[in-house]
Amino acid sequence: MERTEIESLGEFGLINHLTQNNETVQASTLLSVGDDAAVIDQFGKQTVISTDMLVEGIHFDMMYTPLKHLGYKAVAVNVSDICAMMATPTHITMSIAFSNRFSVEALSEFYEGVYAACNKYNVDLIGGDTTSSQKGFVISVTAIGEVTNNQFVCRNGAKENDLICATGDLGAAYIGLQILEREKRIFLENPTIQPSLQEKEHVIGKILKPEARLDVVEWLIENKITPTAMMDISDGLSSDILHICRQSNVGCLIYDEKLPIHSQTKEMAMEFGLSGTSCALNGGEDYELLFTIPQSDYDKIVLSEKISVIGYITTAEESYQLITKQGNKHKLVAQGWSAF
Amino acid sequence: MERTEIESLGEFGLINHLTQNNETVQASTLLSVGDDAAVIDQFGKQTVISTDMLVEGIHFDMMYTPLKHLGYKAVAVNVSDICAMMATPTHITMSIAFSNRFSVEALSEFYEGVYAACNKYNVDLIGGDTTSSQKGFVISVTAIGEVTNNQFVCRNGAKENDLICATGDLGAAYIGLQILEREKRIFLENPTIQPSLQEKEHVIGKILKPEARLDVVEWLIENKITPTAMMDISDGLSSDILHICRQSNVGCLIYDEKLPIHSQTKEMAMEFGLSGTSCALNGGEDYELLFTIPQSDYDKIVLSEKISVIGYITTAEESYQLITKQGNKHKLVAQGWSAF
Repeated sequence: MERTEIESLGEFGLINHLTQNNETVQASTLLSVGDDAAVIDQFGKQTVISTDMLVEGIHFDMMYTPLKHLGYKAVAVNVSDICAMMATPTHITMSIAFSNRFSVEALSEFYEGVYAACNKYNVDLIGGDTTSSQKGFVISVTAIGEVTNNQFVCRNGAKENDLICATGDLGAAYIGLQILEREKRIFLENPTIQPSLQEKEHVIGKILKPEARLDVVEWLIENKITPTAMMDISDGLSSDILHICRQSNVGCLIYDEKLPIHSQTKEMAMEFGLSGTSCALNGGEDYELLFTIPQSDYDKIVLSEKISVIGYITTAEESYQLITKQGNKHKLVAQGWSAF
Repeated sequence: MERTEIESLGEFGLINHLTQNNETVQASTLLSVGDDAAVIDQFGKQTVISTDMLVEGIHFDMMYTPLKHLGYKAVAVNVSDICAMMATPTHITMSIAFSNRFSVEALSEFYEGVYAACNKYNVDLIGGDTTSSQKGFVISVTAIGEVTNNQFVCRNGAKENDLICATGDLGAAYIGLQILEREKRIFLENPTIQPSLQEKEHVIGKILKPEARLDVVEWLIENKITPTAMMDISDGLSSDILHICRQSNVGCLIYDEKLPIHSQTKEMAMEFGLSGTSCALNGGEDYELLFTIPQSDYDKIVLSEKISVIGYITTAEESYQLITKQGNKHKLVAQGWSAF
């Protein structure tokens, strides 16, 4: 039998390969595989569904991830996918597999985080599965949300001249992860040295306990702003904006100087010999929202401190460009986070 | 910190412990944790949601599980949970984690089975996640179904004198698993010996490629039979009937001679020094439906070859009893399948 390595396709190539013959038959299926979430028609309103799996050693390291934070994050990143459709999260299911090195107390701590996130985002935990694993902790969450008929926002609606917006700040989670990995190495070499995490709360908080930007979705709805395209930034801005561009058949122009980067991110990036810009472009796991709006909505969006305009949509022919602070043009290349 | 071993609580004790403070806030949450599936109110119809995780080495052994069958089974067992609510399955999401020993061809084979099951049960695959794992293959499926308002059937509605019914035949999956485990041991000792699986197609089919009993749900709906309680048999009859009894606050009386046991199951059970009855009672993974109906529906149910009446519901005081072929009474004890 032929053997094709998964690496040769990459994550998105693999998904395309596995779903290329996926035909839907239910009339209620409005949107299937390929966006942040799927959409099902439900008799007047619409249901949005998304699912995410977190695997120990791939997505998190138990050595520096408090279980309560992990439970919170597992919910938040799924809620984030629902938010990325401009929908309101309502329910989640949570399945976990864990080895016998876990105690009941450890699982209770994990669930404390789960419930804290449910409480924060006003979602109900309505089901799940608990099972053992031979090795490692695996978490699978499915999130469900609702949206007024046809008000959900996909990745494929960006139009030429639309403004590109990002929420919060970018690159912090990536730098937070670098710090945790460094402290882990130091600890493993010399367990008596205490980790130095002072004045790094923001970047470490972003990797250990990210928040879904439900607040921004609610603000957009309140202010009657409907993005033309939207997704959440989980793989890194440069990778994720290309999803919007390719699915919308447009290009983009991003301004380096407009990228929202926290001062802690910049400082720590320097310590690691990186630039804040490269963290913002290529670092993953920010779980901020990336969306496009018509220029006519600029006056409304400028009122929000939570939202930065970082560039605009061009024609597909103009490709994907970054304008540096010196005014040079570079081609944006997806080199974000990869789980493979 | 105190350490309580998971084994000391067991799976259901653990779930109770972790969900005891789970409060739902969404008005649309009609049924939460504790049944085969949860139910969400969706503006006129109702949505039923269930999720299940399958872990390599715990739920399946890659040595004798063809990937296509595994993909089929992962869908079927989740569809089974939707059927167990008397609902019609409509959609699934599928998340998988796998190590780099998997090739694209292997995953394609797995998905062939997934699509075959989607096709069989008329459900749409609408989303998922693919990620890597350090070790082992993990599959998490969420199934979604719909049901006419308040027509879903829970585990807690069984009434005294109701008839207890089971679909298909019981214990076959357990015996099928014993055969596969035996052949694996023989193969490991002497790889030149070919497995002898002739005349064992039924029992091996039941463990490798179980079917959800959507056909029975459709038959019941057609014939206007509404069970008072229902679940699917995944842990073994003796364990699962106790769920119905405890949640309905009733007892039960099961007749050994009424248990539907396939001739292959009986024959092979003898080879393993087991009785067909103990396989039917304690073997798991049958994915048949277990339900209760009022005695007045007996005339309707007797028409179906797919359904066996195996006993009746008693008062809680009469506890859980098995009447042997010799007429002796034994107390039914849950000793079914455990993933811990």
